[in-house]
Amino acid sequence: MNILITNTTIIPMTAAGYTLCGDIGISGGKIVFIGERDGSFVADKIIDGSNHLTMPALVNAHTHLAMVLMRNYKDDLPTLQEWLSEIFPIEDKLSAEDVYTACRLAVAESIQSGVTTVCDMYFHPSTTIQAIIEGGIRANLGLTLFGDGEASRQRIGERAAIMQAGAAHPSGRITLSAAPHAIYTCTSETYQMAHQWAKENDAILHTHLSETRQEVEECIAEHGVTPLIYLQRIGALDDVKCVFAHGVHLSDEEVSLLSSLDASVVHNPSSNLKLDCGIAPIASYKARGVSVALGTDGASSNNNLNMFEEMHVAALLGRLGGRVSPYEVLSMATIDGARALSLDDRIGTLEVGKEADLIMVNLKQPHLTPHNDLFSALVYSAQASDVSTVLCQGKILMENRILTGYDVDSLLEDTEARWASVLSR
Amino acid sequence: MNILITNTTIIPMTAAGYTLCGDIGISGGKIVFIGERDGSFVADKIIDGSNHLTMPALVNAHTHLAMVLMRNYKDDLPTLQEWLSEIFPIEDKLSAEDVYTACRLAVAESIQSGVTTVCDMYFHPSTTIQAIIEGGIRANLGLTLFGDGEASRQRIGERAAIMQAGAAHPSGRITLSAAPHAIYTCTSETYQMAHQWAKENDAILHTHLSETRQEVEECIAEHGVTPLIYLQRIGALDDVKCVFAHGVHLSDEEVSLLSSLDASVVHNPSSNLKLDCGIAPIASYKARGVSVALGTDGASSNNNLNMFEEMHVAALLGRLGGRVSPYEVLSMATIDGARALSLDDRIGTLEVGKEADLIMVNLKQPHLTPHNDLFSALVYSAQASDVSTVLCQGKILMENRILTGYDVDSLLEDTEARWASVLSR
Repeated sequence: MNILITNTTIIPMTAAGYTLCGDIGISGGKIVFIGERDGSFVADKIIDGSNHLTMPALVNAHTHLAMVLMRNYKDDLPTLQEWLSEIFPIEDKLSAEDVYTACRLAVAESIQSGVTTVCDMYFHPSTTIQAIIEGGIRANLGLTLFGDGEASRQRIGERAAIMQAGAAHPSGRITLSAAPHAIYTCTSETYQMAHQWAKENDAILHTHLSETRQEVEECIAEHGVTPLIYLQRIGALDDVKCVFAHGVHLSDEEVSLLSSLDASVVHNPSSNLKLDCGIAPIASYKARGVSVALGTDGASSNNNLNMFEEMHVAALLGRLGGRVSPYEVLSMATIDGARALSLDDRIGTLEVGKEADLIMVNLKQPHLTPHNDLFSALVYSAQASDVSTVLCQGKILMENRILTGYDVDSLLEDTEARWASVLSR
Repeated sequence: MNILITNTTIIPMTAAGYTLCGDIGISGGKIVFIGERDGSFVADKIIDGSNHLTMPALVNAHTHLAMVLMRNYKDDLPTLQEWLSEIFPIEDKLSAEDVYTACRLAVAESIQSGVTTVCDMYFHPSTTIQAIIEGGIRANLGLTLFGDGEASRQRIGERAAIMQAGAAHPSGRITLSAAPHAIYTCTSETYQMAHQWAKENDAILHTHLSETRQEVEECIAEHGVTPLIYLQRIGALDDVKCVFAHGVHLSDEEVSLLSSLDASVVHNPSSNLKLDCGIAPIASYKARGVSVALGTDGASSNNNLNMFEEMHVAALLGRLGGRVSPYEVLSMATIDGARALSLDDRIGTLEVGKEADLIMVNLKQPHLTPHNDLFSALVYSAQASDVSTVLCQGKILMENRILTGYDVDSLLEDTEARWASVLSR
């Protein structure tokens, strides 16, 4: 299908401050022109882009989609450890069907806030893949590991083929990571197995890192070094792309190491504040050459999957101990997220030849008026609900706030019923 | 007009954790029943409250409405002082008509995010009052003072009668404050005149206080004491209700003094982060008995008037150095704001006999599903755009996201034209 977006303000995210006005042509799921219209282009569908800003769709670079089920449940606990002690028993009860329903809701919610790519770490990959493929978005899915080598061998045995089948989906919308949960829940052997699996499957290594001071202190007590240095020592970082969620408490030595690796830190400022983990000094990391992407974490520690809200919080907190410009925050949520997931050759900017993952933001609203700096407007003034239209791989997933792939009423009913069933078990 | 809201989930904000389900009756602008329907009540208008949560409308306890004109303008400056040096020359150019247009936009934006009461500090009170009265919301309006006694005498002479006429409006929706800008822009004589005027006019004293470390350090250097102690010494606090915007950097002595005064601190977390002023330790203030309300500050340092976003940021930051529960944050944005403005006998909770300032939040959305803790949902998951219907004094200002009093297209055009005109002067 050929889609033409006309007369729109375009933020391609290819250079700081750069905007243009014009049309965007999409054919075969890819962008074929930007700005001046190709006169020979015949559109099957025309979208009026006037009064709208068109930009790359957002990348949520660290989340646990199915945790939408636990949204606002056991919400007001003071620390990560206390909260996990409430959440883990619930997670043990979740079936593949529960995860399917939850992921459907999470995908719908993601689309409504302009997200078409997520990096997910959870269980039951078969139904997660089903919800992603049906929903029309992209995901990097983690083969999630906990515990020792024996547990990991079993999980890899059960899930590797399912994940490889997902990655072979002809859309190319599923990519993979090996996802050992964290150093305080996984043995060194599990990390080594994850590393091996990542290398064999052209996958990323995705793990939680240095989320709390307690984690860092316990690592030093047990292994004599900080978490990232420990992972390096056991060989888990060799020749593999890494995505480190959180990275709130990194030493100077770790920041230097990070800047030399093919790795990204994923900043999750809402979750880090909510679980009293601290504030990652992103401005300082970026100044020292570390790649930083942005994520919401799971909805149960956020409590939504709203990347506009996350950009807003990241921009405000970015003022502490440095400066992160609105353009840099938008980059974290688009091209830097794509880069973290090795998708930057396909998405993350609007450029001819890239796949058409884009969003249209309705500028004609009191809270976005007058139009001064549009980068600031997106980060500081806009809400997720300002996203009117969302395309992924050139397919329209939402138009004028209407989701094209979901009956929202039944989606909400299914989710409530599923959650009631989990609680009753 | 008699309005009946049926079958709704009600958060009256009269006690922590308290919710009920039922109907709400409104007559003569006041709430006549909550919960069980009075069988004799005859409604002129019925609003279906199913799938909605009904709660008190929000109070934005510190703002500068007309600064919406400078939204996202000169946005990325590092400090309050550098930013003010760009903003003050623009403000000098603003006419009463500019302020009218800006306030109309700001009132529309406020209603769209569930706000029906604002505490405003700005210039051109005549057109601000006009925009407030026409818009149907409430305002505590500041007689804003800058400079020395002579300048203040002139301003009081020019504006006092206008403000008194506003306060005499039969709706009772306008109340007053004396609003000396800050200790670094006003002399002690100006504060003393403001104090005198507040006492004579049954008005509040509303001022910026201890927004930056620089302000505190300069005050100590010049006067030998911190700002609040200085204001006490010059008699500016005697027997007058006070609203202190910001209060980011308060000494132990000041916190003790504050808890003994009839005074509120207004927390403006977004603005404080954005202008690198710091983070007010709200949990600690509240634990020590200080009343805390919530505000957005002007849209040019925020960059919107979105109190849902402000609640979200306040809740997240409240985790630093203490704990502020979702209920406490909601209180700050409703009853504690009303109390700060001496309106708590009229608004701020849903109770029989109070005026009907209320909002309805649409719960039937992916990002609010499933429904677990509704207080957490409002603070952590909800967006301003989830507010579907807004009433002030029993009058419907927005219904199903449609503003009843504005042609939004012409409002946006007027604002853009007005701002272009300001920039061209």
